[in-house]
Amino acid sequence: MTVLQEQGAAAKLAAAKMALADTETKNKALLAIADALLTHQDEWLEANAADWEAAKAEGMNDSMLDRLKLTKERIEGIAEGVRQAAALPDPIGTVTKEIERPNGLKIQQKRVPLGVIGMIFEARPNVAVDAAVLCLKAGNACILRGGRESIRSNTCAESIMRAALESAGLPADAVSLVKDTSRESAKEMMHLEGYIDVLIPRGGAGLIRSVSKEASVPVIRTGEGVCHVYVDSEADIPMAAKIVYNAKCSRPSVCNAVECVVLHKSIAEAFFNKILPLLDEKNVEIRGDAKICNILGTRAKEAAEEDWDTEYNDYILAAKTVREPQEAIDFINAHGTQHSECIVTANAETAAQFLDQVDAAAVYWNASTRFTDGFEFGLGAEIGISTQKLHARGPMGLEELTSWKYYVCGDGQIR
Amino acid sequence: MTVLQEQGAAAKLAAAKMALADTETKNKALLAIADALLTHQDEWLEANAADWEAAKAEGMNDSMLDRLKLTKERIEGIAEGVRQAAALPDPIGTVTKEIERPNGLKIQQKRVPLGVIGMIFEARPNVAVDAAVLCLKAGNACILRGGRESIRSNTCAESIMRAALESAGLPADAVSLVKDTSRESAKEMMHLEGYIDVLIPRGGAGLIRSVSKEASVPVIRTGEGVCHVYVDSEADIPMAAKIVYNAKCSRPSVCNAVECVVLHKSIAEAFFNKILPLLDEKNVEIRGDAKICNILGTRAKEAAEEDWDTEYNDYILAAKTVREPQEAIDFINAHGTQHSECIVTANAETAAQFLDQVDAAAVYWNASTRFTDGFEFGLGAEIGISTQKLHARGPMGLEELTSWKYYVCGDGQIR
Repeated sequence: MTVLQEQGAAAKLAAAKMALADTETKNKALLAIADALLTHQDEWLEANAADWEAAKAEGMNDSMLDRLKLTKERIEGIAEGVRQAAALPDPIGTVTKEIERPNGLKIQQKRVPLGVIGMIFEARPNVAVDAAVLCLKAGNACILRGGRESIRSNTCAESIMRAALESAGLPADAVSLVKDTSRESAKEMMHLEGYIDVLIPRGGAGLIRSVSKEASVPVIRTGEGVCHVYVDSEADIPMAAKIVYNAKCSRPSVCNAVECVVLHKSIAEAFFNKILPLLDEKNVEIRGDAKICNILGTRAKEAAEEDWDTEYNDYILAAKTVREPQEAIDFINAHGTQHSECIVTANAETAAQFLDQVDAAAVYWNASTRFTDGFEFGLGAEIGISTQKLHARGPMGLEELTSWKYYVCGDGQIR
Repeated sequence: MTVLQEQGAAAKLAAAKMALADTETKNKALLAIADALLTHQDEWLEANAADWEAAKAEGMNDSMLDRLKLTKERIEGIAEGVRQAAALPDPIGTVTKEIERPNGLKIQQKRVPLGVIGMIFEARPNVAVDAAVLCLKAGNACILRGGRESIRSNTCAESIMRAALESAGLPADAVSLVKDTSRESAKEMMHLEGYIDVLIPRGGAGLIRSVSKEASVPVIRTGEGVCHVYVDSEADIPMAAKIVYNAKCSRPSVCNAVECVVLHKSIAEAFFNKILPLLDEKNVEIRGDAKICNILGTRAKEAAEEDWDTEYNDYILAAKTVREPQEAIDFINAHGTQHSECIVTANAETAAQFLDQVDAAAVYWNASTRFTDGFEFGLGAEIGISTQKLHARGPMGLEELTSWKYYVCGDGQIR
C-alpha cells in the first residue's frame, strides 16, 4: 500500500464512524475545533509566517501573498465560520422519500453522507478548515490536499482539527492532509478508487480542468465563471449600469464576477454614457466588438476572438453588441461556463425567454451575478459552486455533501 | 470536427429544444414512437434477424443470442413500456426549493433536464428504445452507442424514433445512434466534453469499470452487483431459505441477484438443511469456507479468495460463516459493490445495526435483494441502478435524469 492508499483506508474507516455519529457529537467536535483554532492560534500564525516568508523569497506576487496570509482577525473569522457550521441543521438521517408498496414492503430513502471527500485546493489556508468542517458536519471524512506554499499552515490546521475530533470522541482520521505536495500525489489522489467517493477541486480554471480530465474517481467541477450580463433594449439603464458595475468591480477575482456585458445595439451608447464614469474610477479596461469601438473610440480596445472565452478575474470587461435577445442567449450559451448569467430588462416575456433558454446554474433577472453564493442563497454554508449538472448545480451547501440510501423492510417478501 | 463531435453538436442543439418542450408534446412524441415501433415491426424484426444470423455465425453463445433476439411479443412489450413512460408525471419545471431573501431576491430552484445523455450498452436491442424514451420524457437528448452485434437492430430503432420525434414537432437529433461500433468510437465518446453532460454505461462489470476509468465526461456507474444475504442467529430459518433461494435463483444473471450468503455459525447447518433441497433442484454450486465445507462435505467446493469478490451471474452461491453480526457487516463492506445487501433476523436491534452500517444503495431487512428495481420501488421507470453515491444511488427513474437551475429575480439588487 502507498502512503496515500493507507491514508485513504484510514479515512474510509473514519467515514464509517462519522456516518453513525449523532448531531450532538458532530457539533461538539466542531465547537472544539473552533476553540482549538483560537487556543492554538500562535502556532498556526507561526507556521503561516514561515509559509509566507518562503513564498515571498520565491517571488510570489502580492495578491497571492495576501491570500496566503493568516492574521488574528482572519483566524477569528475562520473560527466564527466553524461555529456557524455547528449551528446549521444536520442533513443526515432525514427521510427524503417514503414509499409503501402493494406487497407490503416499506421503503424509505434517507440522507446519508457521501463518505470520503477529497479536496484539492490552492494557496488559501482557510480552505483547509472551511472545507473540512462542512464535510464533517455532513458526516463525511475528508482528505485535504493544499498547495506546497501553504503546507506548514495546513499541517498545523490538520493537527489542531484531528486533536479536537478525538477530544469529542470522533476519529482523528476523519480529517487528514496529504503531506506530499508533488504533482504525483495529486495525480494519485485522482485515481484513489475505492477510497475517495468524490473529489472537489477548488482553485483556478487550470486546476479544475486538469482534475476533471485526469480523475477516475467522481469529480464535482466548481468555480469556473465566464459570466455575462445582457442589457436588453427595454432595460432601465441606470439599473443596468449599477448591476454591471457591481458584478464587475465589487470583487473581480471571484468566479461570480461578470466578464462580458452583452448590449442590445439600441442602448449601447446610452449604457456607456451612464457606466463609463464608474468604470473610469477603477480604470476598467474595455474590450469591445467593432460597434463598441466605434462608440467608445480609444477608450476601448478591439476584442480578440479569445476574449469571449476568457475569465479575466481582473478589471477588464469584454463588451459585445447584439440585435435581439435570442442572439444574446445564443452567444452566452456558446461562450459561458454555465455559472451565472443575467438579463436586465423591464419586459417579463423577454426575461422569461432568457431565463428558460440560458443554460447556467443560476440565471438572474435584474440582479447582480455576484449573489451566486451559498450564504447569499441562504444555504448557510458553501463548499464551492458547481458548474456541472450532475449531483449538484450552483452553490453547494451541506445537503450537496450527502447521498441517499434506500432502507427496505419486509416480512419475507420475495420476487 | 469529427463525426462524433458533429453528432454531439446536433444533440446539444436538440437538447436545448427538448428542454423547452411541454409535457404534452413530449408525450405525443413518445406515443408516436410506440405506434411506429409496431407499424414498422417487420423492418425491425428483419434487421434483428440479420444481426442474429451474423452473431450466430460468429459463434455467440445461446444465452447471448437469446438476449439479442426480438420477437413480435418482445416488441409489443417494448411499445407498452414506451406508453407507460408517456403516462408518468413529467419531472421538468417542478419547483424543488423556494427562497425569499431579506434583500428581496426571489430564488427558485427548478428541475431542468441534464442535457445530453450518452448511453453505452451491450447486446440487448430493447435498451436503445427503453433508455432513449426515458431520456426524452425527462427533456433530454441522447446519444446511443450499442454493441456491434446489434447495430442493424439499433439503426432501425433509431430511424423509427427519429421520424416519430419529427412527426410530433420535436427535433430528430434528440435521439441518435453512434454507427461506428469500434473501441475508438466508445473512447471518443468518453471524452466528448462540452457535448455530453453525463455518460451512463449499461452492461457487464468490465464495460462499467473501463468507462469510469477512462471517461473525462461525468459518468454514473450502474449495475455491478456482488450482493449478500446475512442470515442472523435470530433468523426465521424457513424465511431465510426462501429469501436466499429467491435472491439467487429467480434470475441469476441480473445485478440484484445474491452472490454470497453470510451465515451466523450457530444456524449454518439448520439453514442448509432447509435450503439444500431447493438449491439441488437448480444444481446450484456452493463455494464455502472451511466450516461450510465441513457441514456440507462433497456438496460444497472450497471457496478461493477471489470468490468473495466475484459476481457469478450464474447458479453459483458463495457461503461464508461469521461469529457475530459485526463480522458480517465488515465482511460485506469489504467485499460488496454497494448495490443491495440483506439481513434476515427477528431482532430489530441487530437489523438496525446492519441497515445503518452496511454501505449500499439498498439495504434490506427480511426481503429479497431482487426488489432493487425502479418498477419494484414504484418509480415507474428505470434507466439503471447506480452503485455510486454521486447524483443518484440505487434505481434511477425520471427524476434521476434531471438537474436543477436557480432562477433569481430582483429589482436591481447589488452586493
